[in-house]
Amino acid sequence: MSTHPALERLRSILIESHALGSASALLSWDQETMMPKQGIEGRADVLAQLAGLAHERFVRAETAAALEQLEAARSDLDDDALAIARETRKDYDRATKVPKELVTAIAQAQSLGQDSWQRARAAADFAMFAPSLERLVDLKRAYAHAVNPNAEPFDVLLDDHEADMSTDFLDTLFSALKARLVPMVEAIASSAVVIDTGPLRRALPLEKQLAFARSVTAAMGFDDGAGRVDRSAHPFCIGIHPGDVRLTWRGQTDDLRPALYGLMHEAGHGLYEQGLPAAWVGTPLASAVSLGIHESQSRLWENMIGRSRAFWTAFLPRLKAAAPGVYDDVDVDAMTRAANEVEPSLIRVEADELTYNLHIVIRFEIERDLFRGRLRVRDLPEAWDAAYATLLGIRPPDAARGVLQDVHWSMGAFGYFPTYTLGNLYAAQFLERAREELGDLDGAIARGDFLPLRDWLRERIHRHGRKYPPRELVRRVTGRDPEIEPFLRHVESKFMPLYRG
Amino acid sequence: MSTHPALERLRSILIESHALGSASALLSWDQETMMPKQGIEGRADVLAQLAGLAHERFVRAETAAALEQLEAARSDLDDDALAIARETRKDYDRATKVPKELVTAIAQAQSLGQDSWQRARAAADFAMFAPSLERLVDLKRAYAHAVNPNAEPFDVLLDDHEADMSTDFLDTLFSALKARLVPMVEAIASSAVVIDTGPLRRALPLEKQLAFARSVTAAMGFDDGAGRVDRSAHPFCIGIHPGDVRLTWRGQTDDLRPALYGLMHEAGHGLYEQGLPAAWVGTPLASAVSLGIHESQSRLWENMIGRSRAFWTAFLPRLKAAAPGVYDDVDVDAMTRAANEVEPSLIRVEADELTYNLHIVIRFEIERDLFRGRLRVRDLPEAWDAAYATLLGIRPPDAARGVLQDVHWSMGAFGYFPTYTLGNLYAAQFLERAREELGDLDGAIARGDFLPLRDWLRERIHRHGRKYPPRELVRRVTGRDPEIEPFLRHVESKFMPLYRG
Repeated sequence: MSTHPALERLRSILIESHALGSASALLSWDQETMMPKQGIEGRADVLAQLAGLAHERFVRAETAAALEQLEAARSDLDDDALAIARETRKDYDRATKVPKELVTAIAQAQSLGQDSWQRARAAADFAMFAPSLERLVDLKRAYAHAVNPNAEPFDVLLDDHEADMSTDFLDTLFSALKARLVPMVEAIASSAVVIDTGPLRRALPLEKQLAFARSVTAAMGFDDGAGRVDRSAHPFCIGIHPGDVRLTWRGQTDDLRPALYGLMHEAGHGLYEQGLPAAWVGTPLASAVSLGIHESQSRLWENMIGRSRAFWTAFLPRLKAAAPGVYDDVDVDAMTRAANEVEPSLIRVEADELTYNLHIVIRFEIERDLFRGRLRVRDLPEAWDAAYATLLGIRPPDAARGVLQDVHWSMGAFGYFPTYTLGNLYAAQFLERAREELGDLDGAIARGDFLPLRDWLRERIHRHGRKYPPRELVRRVTGRDPEIEPFLRHVESKFMPLYRG
Repeated sequence: MSTHPALERLRSILIESHALGSASALLSWDQETMMPKQGIEGRADVLAQLAGLAHERFVRAETAAALEQLEAARSDLDDDALAIARETRKDYDRATKVPKELVTAIAQAQSLGQDSWQRARAAADFAMFAPSLERLVDLKRAYAHAVNPNAEPFDVLLDDHEADMSTDFLDTLFSALKARLVPMVEAIASSAVVIDTGPLRRALPLEKQLAFARSVTAAMGFDDGAGRVDRSAHPFCIGIHPGDVRLTWRGQTDDLRPALYGLMHEAGHGLYEQGLPAAWVGTPLASAVSLGIHESQSRLWENMIGRSRAFWTAFLPRLKAAAPGVYDDVDVDAMTRAANEVEPSLIRVEADELTYNLHIVIRFEIERDLFRGRLRVRDLPEAWDAAYATLLGIRPPDAARGVLQDVHWSMGAFGYFPTYTLGNLYAAQFLERAREELGDLDGAIARGDFLPLRDWLRERIHRHGRKYPPRELVRRVTGRDPEIEPFLRHVESKFMPLYRG
C-alpha cells in the first residue's frame, strides 16, 4: 500500500468528508428502517447540514493545495496514489466548477420538480410537470456547460453517473441492442407458450421467505458479520463501511419473487460494498466506481444466477425442505420457467430481464434528443407513447403509466437510466469471462457453491474501487470494450428455448 | 418565540454543531444496538472525525462574532434569547479557554487511563492504575485552572456536570445526608426483617417482561411515535431529537427487576428528552440542563413511582393478567416489599435506593480530598476501604470490588458522581411539590394514571431545557434550594415501616 507525505495529507482531508458521508448513509438507512415517525422532523435538517458541511469542507483551499501537492509528486507515485489523484481531481473540479448560484438554483428546481411531478402523476397530467421539467433541462444544460464548455452537454451528465461514457458510444451500443431485442420480444409475444409463474406464487409466510432468501445470500458469501438485513418500504443496499453493509427487503405472502430476487439483487450490491478495500477508506479507492458497475453486480446475481436452472437445481430442494408440502409438485424446470416470464409491460420497475432494456433505450433516446435540442419537453408524451408502441407493442393508457412513471427526471437525474442497461451488459460480459476462467461454473452453482464466483468478482472488480474508470475496468476484466453480444447470447440461450415451446 | 437578527445568526451556526452531535448520537445508538460486528472498524474513526469537526466548527471566529453581536443586543432580548446567549457563552469559553495541547494531553491520558484501568481491574491491582490516575488528576487540575484560575479546581470540574454547584455546597449537603443515612442503614442492617424478593424473581420469558415493561412506559406517556426501544448490553437513553428518543433495556429471565426498573429508569430520561422544545433545536434551550436534573427524572420514575405501593396497586393485576398463574400467590404488599430490599453492598451499580447515596458520598469525599491535595492517589485504596467500613459496615475483599469498580475516574470524569445523588435529592423535592399541586397523586398512580405527573414534569422542567441553571430550576419548581429533607422523608416513610417488621 502506497504512502507518500502528499498522499497522507490529502487523505487526512478526504477522511473528513468520508466521515460525513458515512454518517449520512447511516442516517438515511435509519430513516427507512428504524426511525420513529416523528423523527422525520429533525432528520431532514440534520442530513441537509451534513451534506452542506461535506461540500464546504471538500471544496476549501486546503483540499486544492493538498491535491496540487500530490499531482506535483506524480513521478514518485504508484498506481494507487495516481488513481487517487485522478479521481479526487475529478470530484474536486465537479464540486468547484459549478457556480454557487447554479447549485442553489438546481437544488430549488429539484425540490419544486419533485413536488410538481408527484402532483402531475397523481393527476396523470403531464402539463402540470412540464414547466418544472423544462427548467430542470435548462439548468442541467447550464451545469454541463459549467463543468466542461467544450463537451456535448449530455456527455457531461452521463459522466456524472458512468465515467468516460459518451452519448455517441451509447447510441451505437443501444441502437444495436434495440435492433436485436425487438425481434426477440416480438417472437416471444407471438409465441403460443404461456409461462406458468404459479410455482413462485405459492402462499408462504414472510418469515419463511426471508429465511430462504437469507440462505441464498449466505451462499453468495454476503457476510452477516459485516452487514445486516432489515425490512423497508423500498428495498435498497447502503454501504456505511466495507465492514458494515446493510440490505433491505420487502415481501408478499403470495409471491416469493420480491423477497428472493429483491434480496439477491441487493446482496449483489452488498457484495460489492463488502469487497471494497477497507484499508483505503476515505479515498476513491474504497468507493464503488460507477452506477453501471454496481448494477452489474446486482443483476448478475439476481437474474443471471438467481433465475438460472443451475440455481434452482441447488435451491429447490432446500426450498422444499424449508416449506414442507408447498412445492411437492414443482420440479427444477417448472421453477426455472416460472422465474423467467417475459411480457411486454408499461412499467419499467416491473419489467422482466429482457424487455427491461427496451424501457431504458426509450428513456435514453428521449434524454439524448432533449439535450441535443431535437425534442421539446412538450412533445415528450407523444414521443414516449410512440416509442412504447414501436418497441414494446403497447401504448400507455395515461401519462401516469407512461412518461410520468419515474422519479428520476423530477430530480434532474438525466443520464442515470442508461446505467441500468449498462449493468446488464457488463454483467453478461463479466459472467462469460468468469465461466471461461472458473471452469464448470454451472456445476458449482448447481451444487450451491457460489463462493468461487464471489471471489472472482471480488478479485477482478470489487477490490479495485475507483482505481480504473468503468470502461477500462470492463476492458481489464474481459479484454473487450463494453458490448452487447454476451448479453444477447445470455438472453437468447435462456429465453428462446423456453418460448420455443 | 423570540426572533432577533443576531439570534438567528448565532442559531444558524449552532445548528451545524447540533447536526453533528445528533448524527453522533445516532451512530452511538446504532453501535450498541444494530451495528454488525465488523462495523466497529470504521465507526470509531467516523465518530472521532465528527467530534473533531463539531469542536472545530464551534470554536471558530464566526461563533464568537455572532455571540458578541447577540450579547451587544442584550437590551433588546427576551428571556429565551438571553438564556441562549448565557449558555452559549459558557460553552464557548469552556471550548476555547483550554489550550489545544492540554486538550490533546487529556484525550491521550483518558485513552491510556481506560486501558490501564481495565488491566488493573482484571488483576485487582490498584498500583497498575495509579500512575494513569495521577496523571489524569494533574491534567484535570490544569484544565480547571485554564477554565477559571480564580476558582477552586474541583468547583470547575463539578460545574462541567452540574452548573453552579460548588464543593462547599455539596460538602454541607452530603455531610448532613450522610449523618442521617448511616443510622438508617444501620437500623435496617440490624433489623430482624428479611425481605423476600421472590415475587420479583419468578421465571418469566423476556418477551413477556418487555411487553409488561412497555405497558408501564406507555402509561408513563413515553411516546412510541417519537421514540423506540431496543436491547443492548447496557441500558441507556439517547436523544437524537425530541421527536426521536431511543431507550434500550436488558433482561434476566429469572428476575423482572432489570427489565422493569431498567426500562422505567431509561423512560424517565426519555420523557425529559421528548419534552425538550423541538422549536429550539440547535440551541441550548433544547438541551437537557444537567446530569443531576436528568437523573432526577429517571430516579423519580424508577424508584419513587415504580417501587411504590400505588404503582403495584395499578400494575400487579396487569402483570397477573399478562402472566397467568405466575403471580397468583402474590399481593400488592408482597410485591412492594420485594421491590424495596435494602442491603449494604460493595458495588455501586447494584446498590438499592437507600445505600446508593452512601456509595456516592464516599466517592465525592475522595474526589474533593484529591483535588484539595489532602489525599494522595496512592492512599486512595485505604481511604476507600475505610469509608466503606465506616459508612456501610463492609470491607471490599479486593480492589476490583472496591476502588477500581467504576469507569469514571479512568476517563478523567471527576465531579460526575455527585450528580447521581443530586438526582435523587431533586427527584424527592420535585415529587413533594407535585404532590402538593396535583392533589391525590398516589390515587392517580394507583389507577395507572401517570399522565398528570408526566405533564407536570414536562411543564415545570422538561420544556425549559437549559433556560435556567439547575439550582435555579430547583428553586423555581420547589421554591427552595436543593436540600435533603424531602429525600429523607421519602426513604424514612418507605423503608422504616418495611423494616420495622
